[in-house]
Amino acid sequence: MTTILGVDPGLTRCGLGVVIVDSRRNCKMLHVEVVATKPDEQLASRISSIGSRIATVMDQFKPDVIALERVFAQANLRTVMGTAQVSGVVLFLAAQRGIRVALHTPTEVKAAVTGSGRAAKPQVGAMVARILGLKEAPKPADAADALAIAITQGWKPSNTDASGLASSGTSAQQAWADAERASKAKSRR
Amino acid sequence: MTTILGVDPGLTRCGLGVVIVDSRRNCKMLHVEVVATKPDEQLASRISSIGSRIATVMDQFKPDVIALERVFAQANLRTVMGTAQVSGVVLFLAAQRGIRVALHTPTEVKAAVTGSGRAAKPQVGAMVARILGLKEAPKPADAADALAIAITQGWKPSNTDASGLASSGTSAQQAWADAERASKAKSRR
Repeated sequence: MTTILGVDPGLTRCGLGVVIVDSRRNCKMLHVEVVATKPDEQLASRISSIGSRIATVMDQFKPDVIALERVFAQANLRTVMGTAQVSGVVLFLAAQRGIRVALHTPTEVKAAVTGSGRAAKPQVGAMVARILGLKEAPKPADAADALAIAITQGWKPSNTDASGLASSGTSAQQAWADAERASKAKSRR
Repeated sequence: MTTILGVDPGLTRCGLGVVIVDSRRNCKMLHVEVVATKPDEQLASRISSIGSRIATVMDQFKPDVIALERVFAQANLRTVMGTAQVSGVVLFLAAQRGIRVALHTPTEVKAAVTGSGRAAKPQVGAMVARILGLKEAPKPADAADALAIAITQGWKPSNTDASGLASSGTSAQQAWADAERASKAKSRR
């Protein structure tokens, strides 16, 4: 059982999702929320509100690992700045608590939950709902995205146990797990 | 007397400079350092080292205000990301301590210490040394930049006292102070 906090970082809306994943890759949602701040608020105040809330969620659910969306250059550079600032705070708060942070690109996340790195937002939301057994997709999209990031981390082959339970994964995940095992075996020689 | 912590944010080198400025705009350096982390280190570990050091300097010198370089889009997007992540941590740590953060663009900083927004790095370093009464420019450039950002904040007309001591400033600063006074007088009506 692994508890994972997924974070979809952002200044206007920051998605936080906590899931628990077992060795058979079953996922259960423990918590989801979107921290919102207003663009006309002072930057320091926005960062502070978001950071305090993230710290509270970390302390409440004590995740084994934090999964954070990797920030990339996008069309809207102003948005990217805010996203990077929030990411910095997440990395700092996690390090203070000795919690490991794993970074995932949006493409990895889409591929992990839908099978396609080019999936649209509604498809990601629909799959998140199915995986977690929810009646409908969590809203806004930032909530679904945070949960999707957490699921991506939970489904990484290296998180399945050594008994080979990863074989219950998709063929792509199986290939990933096989490659990882092969590389480990090689390094032992 | 105002104690100001200037921060030139960065992942590879983060400049921290503490200066004390009196009402006659005399500046004295209390502290300067550059926190360096290696590009091959884990991102979380880099952010953590830098953040811890910044927190320590904040707690040691208890600045009245923190002056932070405003992050802008630059040619090197990867560098900007790291800069924004560190800025986020600075904003968060300052808010936790109730310390105000003022943002200054590189152009403002160059104009404040050299009189030209297009001044080259060595010129900024030379002026910082002159203003603080140092024998030579602090090195590396990140150290001089952090001090320059702190000086810029300390020299803002609004930081001079109400008795009109700002009149000892340059003509541009005088104009700035005058405009500010005029606008205050107007808002009182």
